[in-house]
Amino acid sequence: MGRRSLPTRGHPRQARRGQGPEGAAEVHPGGGSGGQGQQGQQGQAGRQGCTEGRSQGRQARCQARCQDDSSEGGGKSSGQARRPQGRRQSRCARLSAGAEPPVSEAQPALRWAVVGPGNIAGRFVQALQGLPDQELSLILGRDLARARSFASAHRAAGRHEPRLQQAAGEAQLRAALSSPDIDAVYIATPHAQHGEAVAAALQAGKAVLCEKPLVPGLAQARPLLALAQARQAFLMEALWTRFLPVYAQVQQWLQAGLIGPLRGVQSSFCFSIPFDAQSRCFDPALAGGALLDIGIYNLSMTRWVLQQALGACPEPLRMEAQAVLAPTGVDQRLAATLHFPGGISSQFVCAFDGMADNGLRIFGERGLIELPQQFWEATEARLTLAGQAPQTVHLPFQINGFEGEILEVSRCLRAGLTESPQMPLSETLATLAWMDALRTQVGVRYPFD
Amino acid sequence: MGRRSLPTRGHPRQARRGQGPEGAAEVHPGGGSGGQGQQGQQGQAGRQGCTEGRSQGRQARCQARCQDDSSEGGGKSSGQARRPQGRRQSRCARLSAGAEPPVSEAQPALRWAVVGPGNIAGRFVQALQGLPDQELSLILGRDLARARSFASAHRAAGRHEPRLQQAAGEAQLRAALSSPDIDAVYIATPHAQHGEAVAAALQAGKAVLCEKPLVPGLAQARPLLALAQARQAFLMEALWTRFLPVYAQVQQWLQAGLIGPLRGVQSSFCFSIPFDAQSRCFDPALAGGALLDIGIYNLSMTRWVLQQALGACPEPLRMEAQAVLAPTGVDQRLAATLHFPGGISSQFVCAFDGMADNGLRIFGERGLIELPQQFWEATEARLTLAGQAPQTVHLPFQINGFEGEILEVSRCLRAGLTESPQMPLSETLATLAWMDALRTQVGVRYPFD
Repeated sequence: MGRRSLPTRGHPRQARRGQGPEGAAEVHPGGGSGGQGQQGQQGQAGRQGCTEGRSQGRQARCQARCQDDSSEGGGKSSGQARRPQGRRQSRCARLSAGAEPPVSEAQPALRWAVVGPGNIAGRFVQALQGLPDQELSLILGRDLARARSFASAHRAAGRHEPRLQQAAGEAQLRAALSSPDIDAVYIATPHAQHGEAVAAALQAGKAVLCEKPLVPGLAQARPLLALAQARQAFLMEALWTRFLPVYAQVQQWLQAGLIGPLRGVQSSFCFSIPFDAQSRCFDPALAGGALLDIGIYNLSMTRWVLQQALGACPEPLRMEAQAVLAPTGVDQRLAATLHFPGGISSQFVCAFDGMADNGLRIFGERGLIELPQQFWEATEARLTLAGQAPQTVHLPFQINGFEGEILEVSRCLRAGLTESPQMPLSETLATLAWMDALRTQVGVRYPFD
Repeated sequence: MGRRSLPTRGHPRQARRGQGPEGAAEVHPGGGSGGQGQQGQQGQAGRQGCTEGRSQGRQARCQARCQDDSSEGGGKSSGQARRPQGRRQSRCARLSAGAEPPVSEAQPALRWAVVGPGNIAGRFVQALQGLPDQELSLILGRDLARARSFASAHRAAGRHEPRLQQAAGEAQLRAALSSPDIDAVYIATPHAQHGEAVAAALQAGKAVLCEKPLVPGLAQARPLLALAQARQAFLMEALWTRFLPVYAQVQQWLQAGLIGPLRGVQSSFCFSIPFDAQSRCFDPALAGGALLDIGIYNLSMTRWVLQQALGACPEPLRMEAQAVLAPTGVDQRLAATLHFPGGISSQFVCAFDGMADNGLRIFGERGLIELPQQFWEATEARLTLAGQAPQTVHLPFQINGFEGEILEVSRCLRAGLTESPQMPLSETLATLAWMDALRTQVGVRYPFD
């Protein structure tokens, strides 16, 4: 793992406002025109589908992933960074009542740009605003009205007001992200557009946290990783599940060998949405399909389980899958098994056209561990050992679950790392290789493959 | 489905006692020598392993399956059938407080012989003795001391005392089972010995309920089915799970289409026992291995789910499996997926070398059904429909869960059927064909294959 100098934290807080670098349109969310009808637009995006785990009666949180990044010009405004200490202290006090916040009050804030202001970015920003030393500096989207609406929906009292900027395409994004008031960039555009945003942010010399999958396939990943290495820039796929408190407990159980030698994993991640050729979920040009959108959790957490139990995740001896393809050619449902050495198997199903229990179950010789519901956002895990009553732990989020990955980025940057030890790029590559193989097997091809 | 005349119920109750037909040794359990040390033998058999679902903290009942059928000569005694009406009425009253007993008090008792007096036969006899119109007439085993011990352990006050008889091999069994005081035969010997006992019972013109698997492979099944047809005799594999009250509820849910089109099934059936080359579970000569011993439940209930949801179970387009073989060559762990038309998949794992949640989960477009624990002996099922809170039903056994299959045999015989509509022989054949294919795939061969 490479090292890099600390990011631009500690730079003057009064960054240039009003006009982004290279002249991209920029506004302040509080000011001026264009504010009408934005909530309606936001609502429409929310209704558009692709909601992870929606339709589950017991689903606690809605994780809509559809981001409509259509462009729109916008007005212009300016604002000053404010830091209300009273508010910050109370937030900090609240956090320390739970788990100890790993980043102390004394640290300068990590200043973020968000690219792709959709539903999932909203959850990210909610976490950001709940943390004491994270700041939202810039919201970038192809549609300025949408960025404005997003900023308005996610305004937090006493928080620095982010700039808004319209930008599309790698060059414009790079220009906008080159601003010195940005340390890190969070990318939440549709899958197929991640690549250009990641490249832009890395070219601008910023740390990058990019929604999963980093890119649709291995072929698109390699040049980005080379770029990150060349720029000595931090890059991490936003596999937030790995940073949830409950998985720290599961990690302890697995590493302590409580359940004995690993035998297998079973999981599911399914929800039901009507087919819509226009939706990101079903559009091959946007790298749609259940595997890349949600099956990636089954795969990535399979890797994680094997790493915790075995020290490293071996390559599967065999992978086999069957899928139901949507009229657009992407996988609307996929059932797969990965067979590892020692007869360890990981069986999973992911789907846009049905419901499942959406649990993750880890089987060992002497016991089992269950994340019984919505494993990707679990707050509950159950350990059952031979001859003993099951023990259940409840480990709630500090905020909404996204805080873990944000704090991980902070920790890594402070340590001068260009990768997260918990979610290194080798993991991104390995999971992409599996997804490529499974897609090939079921005949899903994207136009850019 | 063929029909047959009613079995020998209503025949004179004072059957010939003391000496079985063709001279096989016969004793009455209450009488004479040989009673010492039998509880110890029984206990030893119980410790020998092969306990379904043992080692699970939440496992309510022990389902030991190891039956040591070593032969032993025995003494001789005689006894009279007794029917204490008072006791019977009170038992009947207890039953009618729960579900209505489908067989009324007015019916003559169905008189059973049990072949293979091991742990699982104990559970069968416990259910038999809790039902008003079932009677245990004869206990047959290769080891008379063990039969005596079994009878002693399962003696029920006020119940007819069964005769005991030593018999081994098809000819001896046929002779013993030809007694006119037997209507039906329950066979609970090790898998590889089922065939000779079934053939003997059918040759003796008796109705047969045989533990699963009926035989180890399709090749051994065909002659038995031909024999049953030739004798117009009732034959059923003892897939007791299909007759549990909770599955009647699941059937209602599935047939009503509540969860929408079926998408898939996930299940597990694993428990941990030490490897023992002498144990039935690991002995290829006795058709050991996890698939035939417990995976048969995953397969048979997969068939059942598809039948309830689709009207019929289609043949899988593809089956794939991986196994870990024991030093004796049988499968100690097997993970398999059956891919059906329409992208419906059934993923399961069965094992003697690990633990799993042992649930069965049925996924549909608009909801899911879960048998969350020990699905093969479930008393709880949960229905979750899109946008609704889950509803859980608890449907306890009337006795110990085995009463369902016993009553099914009674119903079928009364109706003159030679097969059960709920568990017809076509099901036995189809499941055997799947097991043959899976065994071939993972390289498990029995000496008699």
